[in-house]
Amino acid sequence: MTTPSPIEYVDAPPQVRAVYDDIKKTRNVADVNNFWKYLARDPATLKRTWESVKQIMAPGALDPLVKEMIYLAVSVTNGCPYCIASHSFAARKARMSEAMFGEVMAVVGMANETNRLANGYRVPIDDAFN
Amino acid sequence: MTTPSPIEYVDAPPQVRAVYDDIKKTRNVADVNNFWKYLARDPATLKRTWESVKQIMAPGALDPLVKEMIYLAVSVTNGCPYCIASHSFAARKARMSEAMFGEVMAVVGMANETNRLANGYRVPIDDAFN
Amino acid sequence: MTTPSPIEYVDAPPQVRAVYDDIKKTRNVADVNNFWKYLARDPATLKRTWESVKQIMAPGALDPLVKEMIYLAVSVTNGCPYCIASHSFAARKARMSEAMFGEVMAVVGMANETNRLANGYRVPIDDAFN
Amino acid sequence: MTTPSPIEYVDAPPQVRAVYDDIKKTRNVADVNNFWKYLARDPATLKRTWESVKQIMAPGALDPLVKEMIYLAVSVTNGCPYCIASHSFAARKARMSEAMFGEVMAVVGMANETNRLANGYRVPIDDAFN
Amino acid sequence: MTTPSPIEYVDAPPQVRAVYDDIKKTRNVADVNNFWKYLARDPATLKRTWESVKQIMAPGALDPLVKEMIYLAVSVTNGCPYCIASHSFAARKARMSEAMFGEVMAVVGMANETNRLANGYRVPIDDAFN
Amino acid sequence: MTTPSPIEYVDAPPQVRAVYDDIKKTRNVADVNNFWKYLARDPATLKRTWESVKQIMAPGALDPLVKEMIYLAVSVTNGCPYCIASHSFAARKARMSEAMFGEVMAVVGMANETNRLANGYRVPIDDAFN
Repeated sequence: MTTPSPIEYVDAPPQVRAVYDDIKKTRNVADVNNFWKYLARDPATLKRTWESVKQIMAPGALDPLVKEMIYLAVSVTNGCPYCIASHSFAARKARMSEAMFGEVMAVVGMANETNRLANGYRVPIDDAFN
Repeated sequence: MTTPSPIEYVDAPPQVRAVYDDIKKTRNVADVNNFWKYLARDPATLKRTWESVKQIMAPGALDPLVKEMIYLAVSVTNGCPYCIASHSFAARKARMSEAMFGEVMAVVGMANETNRLANGYRVPIDDAFN
Repeated sequence: MTTPSPIEYVDAPPQVRAVYDDIKKTRNVADVNNFWKYLARDPATLKRTWESVKQIMAPGALDPLVKEMIYLAVSVTNGCPYCIASHSFAARKARMSEAMFGEVMAVVGMANETNRLANGYRVPIDDAFN
Repeated sequence: MTTPSPIEYVDAPPQVRAVYDDIKKTRNVADVNNFWKYLARDPATLKRTWESVKQIMAPGALDPLVKEMIYLAVSVTNGCPYCIASHSFAARKARMSEAMFGEVMAVVGMANETNRLANGYRVPIDDAFN
Repeated sequence: MTTPSPIEYVDAPPQVRAVYDDIKKTRNVADVNNFWKYLARDPATLKRTWESVKQIMAPGALDPLVKEMIYLAVSVTNGCPYCIASHSFAARKARMSEAMFGEVMAVVGMANETNRLANGYRVPIDDAFN
Repeated sequence: MTTPSPIEYVDAPPQVRAVYDDIKKTRNVADVNNFWKYLARDPATLKRTWESVKQIMAPGALDPLVKEMIYLAVSVTNGCPYCIASHSFAARKARMSEAMFGEVMAVVGMANETNRLANGYRVPIDDAFN
């Protein structure tokens, strides 16, 4: 029974290093975040999660900044401290301004409020929405 | 002890009608959604909620489509059926394409997954994020 | 593989009937709600849950109406349709007025909003609170 | 890319100072909590949130202690550490006794349990509740 | 603006059919569930989700029944009606007995309760757990 | 207004000592965890919670390891730091291997993802599940 600890590149087996290398190259960073170093305890989960994140967060019909702000909105709603810190950082790196941050937070706060008002008032879905 | 029921315009007191009128004018719609008709049971909450929503969802540093997609992302995370239906509708009206919808859902799904992986692996926040 | 179905009094084994009898006597009702009829599939859970609910919801430092409104506030926050319906009913039976209902919903909505603002703005706990 | 930091009164622009002044006067306190000092990064959200909180938490059909206990119940359900600390403090200031605290926690715990039992047993809503 | 609708095999493009074929073969079923038919609106999400589910739910250190019960426990905690129905079905197919179901529900209910008690009593983590 | 603090055995009243004694005997440990020492502020909740946990977590149709992994899965989904730490510890004590831990996390992550995909795509429940 040992405490979880991060797996650094020098200590990592080849299949973990391969994922770290791809993260560093794709994101143009010198080292990977703690998230990946802890996930590396399970190389299958590390690889599958990275490949999914890489595919989903790539530019598409939505640009990367919008995707990062949505990621942040979900993390704030769930109250995940690590995720809020890491995706605030990522969104700012993708050029989220202070004004944009304020608006994301305002929408997240309001949506969490009206979600509960709709629950509590037991509002039936309008025909127009179906 | 009566079941909640919607308050229609013709039955509404003046302060409720004033809110309905402003919603209809602001959104250029013929009638308000069920959400407002149920909230009208408490005119103070109706007025405060509408004024907050109106302020928050107006164009700003983020355009209305991005705000609607964030609203939808929160509603899907919380599992609010009314809110998912109404904000899917609103986002499509604001020109969310089918491809954009697919990408919002993919990001929301992935964020909900990695939020729990960060929790479960007890990942400490990187110094770089502070 | 059968669909869950309610267990009616006439079909219930003695230990289930004993719980139903205690619910009916304690609450002065002619029949128990669906919640108990479905829980009866597991008589140990039925008995333990009823005894806990009976103990917790009895008058104490808080009166039963306040307890019912707190129960409703939690159920609305979690988005449990059955629980919202049953505890709205129970709170009204305990004399929650329409004005009280409106205020409970307003507090629940605001708390859900500010919980996320505190998360998103990463607010550290004031020394005064510890 | 800077870390969020609190905005103190001396550094605050006039519209932020106006909100701080109203909080201090309304609550009869010497300084505002961290929550407001962080929210001040977005003066529009600061002002809107304070005005909503002020309106909602004022005495009405429910007294302020009951409202604070409901706020605490929601914050505990959502697992917001800042909000649990600040609203425990506020509820005690509003004369929540140790016995009341214990009963709030007991109801919150039980509601969170039975919400999931109702989900898992897929209990249909009783006709009597509609 | 059209309502979401399921994509049946006969109407599906080749890359969707390939996923449907693999689901049917892997699970030895005549048709795929609604979940996949709706996800097929976004073939990339359909493929990625199926491949992840297939990898994760395969026998490993845990047998498939345990995995299905964990899936059900999460779905009940989140209150996802579709997921509760589909994973109750899947768990029973994997030989979850009525007694096992009752114990899963009891653990889920108790965990949701004690999670909130730990939050509300602000319990610090024991040194022994680190 | 005092900060919550743990109640140690030497300071505990008789009814609290009786619960501590039963926990120590049942679990064969020298001292109880912080969770119980904080809950002891309300002896009725302490006793009821321990008796429920003792009954629910005993061997039954499911073995204790499976129950601990389900408890962990719920705690990770809810994001309760204390509960994640304590039930990771308890599950490892009950012989959860590193490979099992990785699979529990993978299932929890995937379930949290697909729960939201089912919400967002508004998937209707298959007839076969009812």
